Amino acid sequence: MYKNDFYTKEIHGNYELYDAGDFDLEDGGKILDCTLAYKTFGELNEAKDNVIVIPTWFAGTSNDYESYIGEERALNPTKYFIIVINQIGNGLSSSPHNSPEPISMNNFPKVRIGDDVRAQHQLITEKYGIKEIALVVGGSMGAQQTYEWAVRYPDMVKRAAPIAGTAKNTTHDFLFTKTLMDAITSDPGWNNGNYNSNTEVAEGLKRHADIWSVMGLSTEFYQQEKWTLFGVDSAEEFVSGFLEPFFQGMDPNALLTMAWKWQRGDVSRMTKGNLEEALGRIKAKVFVMPIDEDIFFPPRDCKVEQNLIPNSEMKIIHSIAGHFGLFGGEGSYYHDQIDKHLNELLSIAVADKVF
Amino acid sequence: MYKNDFYTKEIHGNYELYDAGDFDLEDGGKILDCTLAYKTFGELNEAKDNVIVIPTWFAGTSNDYESYIGEERALNPTKYFIIVINQIGNGLSSSPHNSPEPISMNNFPKVRIGDDVRAQHQLITEKYGIKEIALVVGGSMGAQQTYEWAVRYPDMVKRAAPIAGTAKNTTHDFLFTKTLMDAITSDPGWNNGNYNSNTEVAEGLKRHADIWSVMGLSTEFYQQEKWTLFGVDSAEEFVSGFLEPFFQGMDPNALLTMAWKWQRGDVSRMTKGNLEEALGRIKAKVFVMPIDEDIFFPPRDCKVEQNLIPNSEMKIIHSIAGHFGLFGGEGSYYHDQIDKHLNELLSIAVADKVF
Repeated sequence: MYKNDFYTKEIHGNYELYDAGDFDLEDGGKILDCTLAYKTFGELNEAKDNVIVIPTWFAGTSNDYESYIGEERALNPTKYFIIVINQIGNGLSSSPHNSPEPISMNNFPKVRIGDDVRAQHQLITEKYGIKEIALVVGGSMGAQQTYEWAVRYPDMVKRAAPIAGTAKNTTHDFLFTKTLMDAITSDPGWNNGNYNSNTEVAEGLKRHADIWSVMGLSTEFYQQEKWTLFGVDSAEEFVSGFLEPFFQGMDPNALLTMAWKWQRGDVSRMTKGNLEEALGRIKAKVFVMPIDEDIFFPPRDCKVEQNLIPNSEMKIIHSIAGHFGLFGGEGSYYHDQIDKHLNELLSIAVADKVF
Repeated sequence: MYKNDFYTKEIHGNYELYDAGDFDLEDGGKILDCTLAYKTFGELNEAKDNVIVIPTWFAGTSNDYESYIGEERALNPTKYFIIVINQIGNGLSSSPHNSPEPISMNNFPKVRIGDDVRAQHQLITEKYGIKEIALVVGGSMGAQQTYEWAVRYPDMVKRAAPIAGTAKNTTHDFLFTKTLMDAITSDPGWNNGNYNSNTEVAEGLKRHADIWSVMGLSTEFYQQEKWTLFGVDSAEEFVSGFLEPFFQGMDPNALLTMAWKWQRGDVSRMTKGNLEEALGRIKAKVFVMPIDEDIFFPPRDCKVEQNLIPNSEMKIIHSIAGHFGLFGGEGSYYHDQIDKHLNELLSIAVADKVF
């Protein structure tokens, strides 16, 4: 364990903690006192059916969805009980740097998307007694968890909106994520996961950020010099002033835990590798929402999966920021698209429910 | 200096050497006895105007164009005198590992695209007395050199076909190339360029190859599992069995010399940064030929430049292999597209010439 000032309420706003107990993992081992950090908005209604679950993306936290939620938005806390749950390993929930021995640092076990969703299910059923979810929505690794929710708990999930992510990770994506991981593990300061502070891995984290500068955006973002979407004035500032310090503040083992999980996201693990069968289990109404300029979760990869989901539609989001469109830097231009689709999705009656 | 068995005639076929003398470089310094390795096909006609110049791409050599040249192809040696010239730093021409002190290894000077083209110009004028070039054509960094040729020697170059490359490198591309370079320089075995053998940098070269596995192909290549285009049967074999050993045989300083040059390719260096003026100088008929699935030289980036070239047309090549479509793994499907466009281009009368 070590203290990392990035993973605090000062940076990420308030959140609550849920202790899922000693949590057994798909790949063996367990997380002792597995803790989920989560944040809620709005009130759970009496029927306990106004629930929206939002899982977090790679290197992200519950804080990243603040701009998605509001009284004027589809994700409206005056109407819904919204619960944003931080994925295991993200630095706020149980993670390598904040876990005591015997699972501290490089002894932290391998975690799967399925582990996250089971722990999230335990949180909302045990703590809140929720039996029905109006909508699961999330971006990137949040989309992976969204798909996992819809396949694993088909009767519980009424609607699902995976944004910029896939149900089964592609080979291209696996290889991309490998370069992100190698950027960190090639730093001698990483020391096989046994460093004293993230600052000892500054060079590896910088290289990690630099790869994001290539894959996270779009060529058109650079052609049109859209730095202002991230509050900076030049490419130099965008990389050296924003992306690099952004990732350098994070915990290397946290990033590696999430990346390993991302590489292996695959709902067909529940159906012995049969993706058609897995996606065919989904009972939710699904809007598949890739971002048109996304380099590594391109719409056509998402379309292949959407074709296998019974009650689904493609809703392509436009963002010149590519995958990082998720950050919402385009403001209402981006959020209005998301809201339009989510409002439509929430208005569709599923079984006997309509909002 | 050290001996690297990759850069031999056994691997790359026969080639000749031209000594350009002590060659002054744009960024200062000089290459003593600057040597260009080149290979010719066909015969120079009496008018010395049946000339096709082909510069090489990043990590490539004259050998890579063998499949582009043939009696049945547009690049027909029974009609044209074709000269394929290896770029400086590629391992066959003057390069860090084959140069003696004082410019050996990490003392090798910085080389620009403009240096290459001036040296190539010296070769074809001094050695062959050529005053007119029917066509300059090349892929990737070969396209960068093609643009440089057309802007620097506008009266000499009658036709130009830059394939999968740009006249002015983009910021996105600069950042991508940086990740390729960092993969190598982060290897402690690189030792600031003073290693005894490329094998000491095996890990860095492997990471370099892994980044190519993400950026060099297309997501659709992986979705459709097109490994057979590279003679292998799986993604694993494609990366571990082909790409990694391919790059691990190369010289790290050679790759870094070429990458530095690639990052700074920019014809507007000849016009004080004015790209419109530089491209406006071109008198050649130009076919701009990007590959549709290219992740880092996408057609739309090429289109921005084509709009600034007076006598030019877009001719988009389809290849699911993305940038690596250049390798010609798709056989006649790829080469027939190239030939169709080059045949058309060569058939267009420029001034009083038509072939």
